[in-house]
Amino acid sequence: MQYNAIRAAVNAAAVFAIYLSFAMLVPAAADLYYGSEDWQAFAMSAFFTGGLALAVALATQGRPPQLTTRFGFLVVNLLWLTTSLVGAVPLLVSQTEITLTDAIFEAVSGITTTGATALSGLDQLPPGVQLWRSLLQWMGGLGVIALGLFVLPFLNIGGVSYFKIESSSIDDRPFERFSTFSRSLIGIYAALTLVCAICYAAGGMNGFNAINHALTTISTAGFSTHDASMGFYRDNYAILWVGTVFMFLGALPFSVVILLALRGSLDALKDPQIKVYAGYTLVFVVAIALYLRIATERPFLDALTHSAFNFVSIITTTGYASEDYSLWGPFAMAAAFAATFLGGCSGSTSGGIKAYRFLIVAELVANGLRKLIYPNTVQIVRYGDRVIDETVQRAVVLFMSAFLVLWLIITVLLAATGLDLLSATTGALTSLTNVGPGLGPMIGPAGNFAAVPDAAKWIMSIAMLLGRLEILAVLVIFTPFFWRR
Amino acid sequence: MQYNAIRAAVNAAAVFAIYLSFAMLVPAAADLYYGSEDWQAFAMSAFFTGGLALAVALATQGRPPQLTTRFGFLVVNLLWLTTSLVGAVPLLVSQTEITLTDAIFEAVSGITTTGATALSGLDQLPPGVQLWRSLLQWMGGLGVIALGLFVLPFLNIGGVSYFKIESSSIDDRPFERFSTFSRSLIGIYAALTLVCAICYAAGGMNGFNAINHALTTISTAGFSTHDASMGFYRDNYAILWVGTVFMFLGALPFSVVILLALRGSLDALKDPQIKVYAGYTLVFVVAIALYLRIATERPFLDALTHSAFNFVSIITTTGYASEDYSLWGPFAMAAAFAATFLGGCSGSTSGGIKAYRFLIVAELVANGLRKLIYPNTVQIVRYGDRVIDETVQRAVVLFMSAFLVLWLIITVLLAATGLDLLSATTGALTSLTNVGPGLGPMIGPAGNFAAVPDAAKWIMSIAMLLGRLEILAVLVIFTPFFWRR
Repeated sequence: MQYNAIRAAVNAAAVFAIYLSFAMLVPAAADLYYGSEDWQAFAMSAFFTGGLALAVALATQGRPPQLTTRFGFLVVNLLWLTTSLVGAVPLLVSQTEITLTDAIFEAVSGITTTGATALSGLDQLPPGVQLWRSLLQWMGGLGVIALGLFVLPFLNIGGVSYFKIESSSIDDRPFERFSTFSRSLIGIYAALTLVCAICYAAGGMNGFNAINHALTTISTAGFSTHDASMGFYRDNYAILWVGTVFMFLGALPFSVVILLALRGSLDALKDPQIKVYAGYTLVFVVAIALYLRIATERPFLDALTHSAFNFVSIITTTGYASEDYSLWGPFAMAAAFAATFLGGCSGSTSGGIKAYRFLIVAELVANGLRKLIYPNTVQIVRYGDRVIDETVQRAVVLFMSAFLVLWLIITVLLAATGLDLLSATTGALTSLTNVGPGLGPMIGPAGNFAAVPDAAKWIMSIAMLLGRLEILAVLVIFTPFFWRR
Repeated sequence: MQYNAIRAAVNAAAVFAIYLSFAMLVPAAADLYYGSEDWQAFAMSAFFTGGLALAVALATQGRPPQLTTRFGFLVVNLLWLTTSLVGAVPLLVSQTEITLTDAIFEAVSGITTTGATALSGLDQLPPGVQLWRSLLQWMGGLGVIALGLFVLPFLNIGGVSYFKIESSSIDDRPFERFSTFSRSLIGIYAALTLVCAICYAAGGMNGFNAINHALTTISTAGFSTHDASMGFYRDNYAILWVGTVFMFLGALPFSVVILLALRGSLDALKDPQIKVYAGYTLVFVVAIALYLRIATERPFLDALTHSAFNFVSIITTTGYASEDYSLWGPFAMAAAFAATFLGGCSGSTSGGIKAYRFLIVAELVANGLRKLIYPNTVQIVRYGDRVIDETVQRAVVLFMSAFLVLWLIITVLLAATGLDLLSATTGALTSLTNVGPGLGPMIGPAGNFAAVPDAAKWIMSIAMLLGRLEILAVLVIFTPFFWRR
């Protein structure tokens, strides 16, 4: 690792921190508007972190670094780490008494769009703190889409992109492409959020809650302004269906959303992972709706609404709950557990294993079986009408294997801090997949992470970052050869 | 699939069933010796299944089939299915009232060396039934070793064999090699069992129990003649350590055991998976012993003895329990859960994911990380001083991915039969890995599978067979191209 690369990475993180400190003025304004004195916490945080970030940015100015993959990994890790730390500052300073551990946990959970909260009494939080939590998730979502579109492909990690968004004519001008795209990306992401907020408001949410929930719906993130999460609107089917639809949209590949929005091209829906994602979502939603209808005899519309809302929430790794679905019986519990692994599409804000990996594993198993019978035939793995090369195939199954091993290790570590088995297994899982709630009385959909031991919160924070950055992009930082000159 | 291949496979299964019917005379003799009238059940079963098997064997005689991989898979699946069904007959007929489902479950659990029992009141069972359960496991263990040594390599599935056992001079005479080996295999397996039985007896077990437990220890299988499993000898450290040592030996690659026995060659211990297996076993045993010492203040020797016995039992996929370790607190619970995935070595009677797969996954992750930084270097995956080719690499990670997906599906299916989440997740897991007990009040180490719903028992039986035959070897039977002419 060259000195210049480290300097430039720190510089990039500092510049990013400056933007973040400007973002703090939004909750400050909200606090002022609603007459909360807590605006000072945000103004102060903005001033001091902004000043510090500016100083660091100036001190680390210099010639542009070589754009190596190492530099890329360093920047990505530093960005997520810095935004987690900077995002925690106003929470620490605010009049709400939040411990250092809780502030960091909350910021990491926000930035990684996980949505596990260490706070209780959400409804009574000052509006600035509520909005800041939502904004962190919204920005975290934007960040992860940008990561998936622009950075990870360059780093040869994670994901398969089925559609190139741009016409090939500008393909040779990557920077132009980058700025055109990042503008349309931000524009469409913001527009979608606005539409979602308007729909929530039309459904009966007040303006402030509509904005907050729209910010955390589009980013499939899951922080709510209510302790009861979306259970606050338990009987408002309109709001729940708005949430369901926008969460589902949020877990589509964002390139597809851009193509739909810019060109109205339905071709974009041909990406094979969409079928898989829509398929398993449908299976879970219908199965649980039927089960609820039969087991609890509630009206079918009620069963379907809550099944759809909660299982779309889990599968898209959002993490809202409209009810304590862990009380729906063992079948729903097991389904929720299994669904926590799934995730939405590659190139979206959702986490988890993701649909394209399941698709490729299924193809590899089918090919493997065929190869047992016809050992000498060459087997081709297809993704739609494209052929997937060996490297991607191996990356997919390797990710799943590493995911399984990592999950078991984190489970044991969490249990060592004193968590019970259910909280440890589902806590480790929900952190790695960035879903939000786990299962069980403590961290389940009706609970929160306030009572989780501090040591476990730190472990979960690391797990959330690992999950968000597709595991390998974080692990690589801890190898000796990464730091070799 | 050729007609002749199906005929020959049925013939092989029928011949095997004849042997199995002769084996029923052993428990018949035991019943006679101990004066139990139940000998008639075994004599009758032997007579009728033997007669039927003989008829089928004669009816399906014919010219030898082509030795294709399809034929191999057909035979393997038929053998395990037939022995499961035939093994269940005497249990059904015996004076102990066992339902059809329970008899099949018990036989499958026996033949697959799982050790989950659907029976309670084990101590009061007629000696013939007790001995039959143990014999099924012992034969199942022998079968799986033979499968690993002679059949799976030919079918290109599962496992890496580090040492070829024979001198290369007879390599070109595979049938001679087969018969030499199968004799030394059976001889050494039987001798080890005898030594184990003598040690148990020396430790204070009566002769009958010593034989039964030796049969199910060497095969890392786990049926006991006591409802309390090895908890019956809770304070007899000698017996527990005998069990620990022989379970540990049982999960070593059997080729290594043969080499040690025949040539006294310590070189055989160089197989890299042994280090990994011994390594993680040591970590679990020591960590839990220290945890028990500190958390419960019991004497260190007691803590170590029970930690070693129970965690070696889980890791080797035996499934005995000397205590209800689920009462040892959350850390031990989570450790037991994670350990249920592990398994021993390839080429042994143990199930689970197995040490060599973890070793190869670790190498692949390390290589993958290096490749992120140096994309153009060629990465070689080593297993000791041998190079592992792409096919094996992919098979390993594909197995783990398929295992994860299958486990989640079976969990949801089990929950659909009404099992609670803990019983469903750990029941699916312990069946797939052939461990035996799960966790929780019902199927945990202090419970048994008697109260599990019938539908769940059938699902678990299928899962045990899937796990025992390395998943793909079973799935392949259900593909359309398998049956194509």
